[in-house]
Amino acid sequence: MPESTAQSTQTTSPSSSGTAQFRRETSAKGEFVRQANRFTERITADGSSGRKVEPGRYRLIWSRACPWAHRAAIVRRLLGLEDVISLGTVDPIRDERGWRFSLDPDGRDPVLGVEFLSESYLATDPGYEGRVTVPSLVDERSGLVVTNDYPRITLDLSTEWKAFHKPGAPDLYPEDLRAEIDEVADLIFHDVNNGVYKCGFATTQDAYESAYDALFARLDWLEDRLRGQRYLLGDRLTEADVRLFTTLVRFDAVYHGHFKCNRNKITEMPVLWAYARDLFQTPGIGETVDFDQIKRHYYGTHHMINPTGVVPKGPDTSGWTTPHGRG
Amino acid sequence: MPESTAQSTQTTSPSSSGTAQFRRETSAKGEFVRQANRFTERITADGSSGRKVEPGRYRLIWSRACPWAHRAAIVRRLLGLEDVISLGTVDPIRDERGWRFSLDPDGRDPVLGVEFLSESYLATDPGYEGRVTVPSLVDERSGLVVTNDYPRITLDLSTEWKAFHKPGAPDLYPEDLRAEIDEVADLIFHDVNNGVYKCGFATTQDAYESAYDALFARLDWLEDRLRGQRYLLGDRLTEADVRLFTTLVRFDAVYHGHFKCNRNKITEMPVLWAYARDLFQTPGIGETVDFDQIKRHYYGTHHMINPTGVVPKGPDTSGWTTPHGRG
Repeated sequence: MPESTAQSTQTTSPSSSGTAQFRRETSAKGEFVRQANRFTERITADGSSGRKVEPGRYRLIWSRACPWAHRAAIVRRLLGLEDVISLGTVDPIRDERGWRFSLDPDGRDPVLGVEFLSESYLATDPGYEGRVTVPSLVDERSGLVVTNDYPRITLDLSTEWKAFHKPGAPDLYPEDLRAEIDEVADLIFHDVNNGVYKCGFATTQDAYESAYDALFARLDWLEDRLRGQRYLLGDRLTEADVRLFTTLVRFDAVYHGHFKCNRNKITEMPVLWAYARDLFQTPGIGETVDFDQIKRHYYGTHHMINPTGVVPKGPDTSGWTTPHGRG
Repeated sequence: MPESTAQSTQTTSPSSSGTAQFRRETSAKGEFVRQANRFTERITADGSSGRKVEPGRYRLIWSRACPWAHRAAIVRRLLGLEDVISLGTVDPIRDERGWRFSLDPDGRDPVLGVEFLSESYLATDPGYEGRVTVPSLVDERSGLVVTNDYPRITLDLSTEWKAFHKPGAPDLYPEDLRAEIDEVADLIFHDVNNGVYKCGFATTQDAYESAYDALFARLDWLEDRLRGQRYLLGDRLTEADVRLFTTLVRFDAVYHGHFKCNRNKITEMPVLWAYARDLFQTPGIGETVDFDQIKRHYYGTHHMINPTGVVPKGPDTSGWTTPHGRG
């Protein structure tokens, strides 16, 4: 498992994938090896972790481009936590100084007052030498980073922040399904979520082909699984669906061409395509998707894959709002 | 017209598109500017050009990867000229020494006796400093290059070599349709054949988007034109169809991803997709298509576009042999 070799002392994130990462996270065999997350504090309902849930205290920093950050933004909306946890959005285009708040009118996050997310990282760990990543949860009071541990962030939003969920919010991590959610999400992580990166960041033909084969075998498996049921775990929308969705919605727009995941587009897999549209059209999900920022990020920052930085005009995304016929 | 600025003194060809050409054939605005062909002698039926048609004397050098060379190989087969004009095939992967005969058992063309096509070019023009290109027609007796003027090569096979066509060979350039063939082929050249290169070799967003818009506008126009008729000029297969085909057959395999021609795949345009399959399944055409060599050439030689040289496994090409329902 390439992932198991990750250095826990190095701060990296799924979205920090510029030229530098491309080299640092490549094995001798040319495989992409995703590194570990640096900050892993938790915010809990009972405060046993040392941090208690508290409305108006934490700020989620995301990029609309990043599939891992996108998960957190979707879960926040599905659960109705918009007024409980604030949201800061970085520019999809990073320079060598990392994620920046250049979408904000004065180039500063209006709450944290910083121009670069790296300022918050260095305030938290002055000796920090890694790259700065999203999603990050930042303590608005201290300005310090609490966590950039993306798989834990979303699960904790579902379980620890329950008291603040909106009425009728879905239970995205129900106790009776947790074991199966974890199992399915793990398969999807290795083969699909991270699998597309393993295709795109491979520097040898063998490494690429292994990742490609695993990716499409898993997509075929998903196509079968979803044929007879609306969601991955049956008739309930869960965390596993959110995690799959943020990769599926980027698939044809960037992974298909930019990462060479090109056996077929998602639009060519009828079940997955209908499933992806069903999720896209679910209130709270489609509104968080920004194809323009997604494309500009990938094509504009991976200079080792796309030296000219030219961003494709395609694909046609009008199909996302067509009837899906599920449910 | 970018093409009109081409240097006629510089020998280049459509297929010589490595890193060096990528720089030399780029305008200040980041547009791809295709250069002119160096050798333009003609072989004529009456010998008025100084060279008379003669079976067993000329050798067509092609690469299976190159759409411009592919035209000549298709026309040669459709007309039944296999025993009249011999065929030499270069390796789809070039190094800095250019097209090479490394597919032949001893690494030499068995007729010309050369390892590199450049040897024939230098024998013809000892001061030659440009790159070596396919298609090239070489005089087997002298070993000298007669022409690399690809649009003229195919027309002359149809018109000047008529005496040697097989019985029942199609008239690919019939006199009553020549004006319209020329007109349609010119539109297709600028927007489609060369248009995909203008997309892929653009180094600025503006240059890319202009080429992309022209390309898909023309594909839409072709989709309409071909809805009510089997071939571009009506019910007869002509040179114009051959010229369009060699781009269409490469479209999903390389241009869609590698050149960012990604509004949609050809498989997503029902009329063009059926038309392309109809041509693919026409005896003499499909046999000349080699998707593996096509992909290895583009992805393996354009280092400015694909620095790792990794070749995509996709797309699935099994659809090419499915029923087309035309004709």
